[in-house]
Amino acid sequence: MSSSREIGATRWVVADGYIPPESSGPEPAMTSHDSVCMLNAGPVDAVVEIAVYFTDRPPAGPYVLQVASQRAHHQRINDLREPESIPVGVDYSLVLSSTEPIVVQHTRLDSRQAANALMSTIAYSQG
Amino acid sequence: MSSSREIGATRWVVADGYIPPESSGPEPAMTSHDSVCMLNAGPVDAVVEIAVYFTDRPPAGPYVLQVASQRAHHQRINDLREPESIPVGVDYSLVLSSTEPIVVQHTRLDSRQAANALMSTIAYSQG
Amino acid sequence: MSSSREIGATRWVVADGYIPPESSGPEPAMTSHDSVCMLNAGPVDAVVEIAVYFTDRPPAGPYVLQVASQRAHHQRINDLREPESIPVGVDYSLVLSSTEPIVVQHTRLDSRQAANALMSTIAYSQG
Amino acid sequence: MSSSREIGATRWVVADGYIPPESSGPEPAMTSHDSVCMLNAGPVDAVVEIAVYFTDRPPAGPYVLQVASQRAHHQRINDLREPESIPVGVDYSLVLSSTEPIVVQHTRLDSRQAANALMSTIAYSQG
Repeated sequence: MSSSREIGATRWVVADGYIPPESSGPEPAMTSHDSVCMLNAGPVDAVVEIAVYFTDRPPAGPYVLQVASQRAHHQRINDLREPESIPVGVDYSLVLSSTEPIVVQHTRLDSRQAANALMSTIAYSQG
Repeated sequence: MSSSREIGATRWVVADGYIPPESSGPEPAMTSHDSVCMLNAGPVDAVVEIAVYFTDRPPAGPYVLQVASQRAHHQRINDLREPESIPVGVDYSLVLSSTEPIVVQHTRLDSRQAANALMSTIAYSQG
Repeated sequence: MSSSREIGATRWVVADGYIPPESSGPEPAMTSHDSVCMLNAGPVDAVVEIAVYFTDRPPAGPYVLQVASQRAHHQRINDLREPESIPVGVDYSLVLSSTEPIVVQHTRLDSRQAANALMSTIAYSQG
Repeated sequence: MSSSREIGATRWVVADGYIPPESSGPEPAMTSHDSVCMLNAGPVDAVVEIAVYFTDRPPAGPYVLQVASQRAHHQRINDLREPESIPVGVDYSLVLSSTEPIVVQHTRLDSRQAANALMSTIAYSQG
């Protein structure tokens, strides 16, 4: 298995951040959310800092997360609390900076209407 | 925080542009739309020019937008007015040219039917 | 405007090809379909050849398309006829080879159930 | 036709893996699933090993697949059985390692609610 080799990049960007402000269906699975799904396939634990950019005020953060070696970590933006919660219904963008190479995929589940919608993309990587 | 470092590229392409011509649900949140979500994480304000390509006539534009330093800007194509509005229900493609590195993500919300659909992708970058 | 500069690549791949075999809603807009959306932002008309790969038989094609200089072309795979139609409900992949740099985005509309679903991604580029 | 030239990469990552735990609609087409869609456009058969990373235990695998020369292979993660099934409703990530260049696209169909949702992205490639 190739699980011990490093793969990925240390800087990632999600440009379309948004938490839909309403939901339908059972919580928490069907709660509308915006997520960054991270894989650290390498041999060293990673510290990931997330900066959140808005349209009309300075960026918030850093939000500091740990992604252990050879582990996945799917993080709902809704659940970030420190240094401040991200408001729902507001446009934002994310920059993730990691101490180790990781891979980041951005996914949104939107259940404002009666059947949920999904969108996903590998984030933009650099470095 | 890494918010002061430049990240991204200066040329971006969205190949699948389309504004669904009908909507269901409350305006403006659930109005069918096509968006380009941009992040300027760098230290200098960016001027972004958008050229719109059609299937059967010369390109329209440029549409000129400002994306301030360290700010996100999510732009609905529906809302572009100068030099001309983009018609709904018509195929198009976009080229974005920025004076500063930015990151662009393309997202469509389609609420023609009773529950909305979403799609998103990091746009194609060059330069 | 930057519309006269070339942008893109000459080889593109869509790995997840599939035409959902049923539809709900008015034709042709809401007919389930798989599309390749192409932009030729350059100064020379492009000839694009599409090869279609299947799971259990040799590839079909080439399907030959013209994408004029400075024009978008959104092509439903459903509508390809020569040298043969692509069957619905069958897994396939696509390789697009262009004489000029283009950008390709893959989008599916699936209206098998009562509210349509969408997915989209910039295709994989090489060369 | 260009079908005999190699295209792609030998290492691919899907960061957002998840099999929705419920479904609505006829099986197997509308069963909620997570898929990796692979194209081997080259002249040599490929052996693909998939490692599955979790949030709270060591990675599973390798899952070993064959993708023949000039063939597509769309693999539902739901259907992997050896060395162990992937549980539904659990976050994971995937690393695919191929002996030949391939292209990988990740797609999820989620039919937990009455109308299905779709998401898709070209996976992250390296090497």
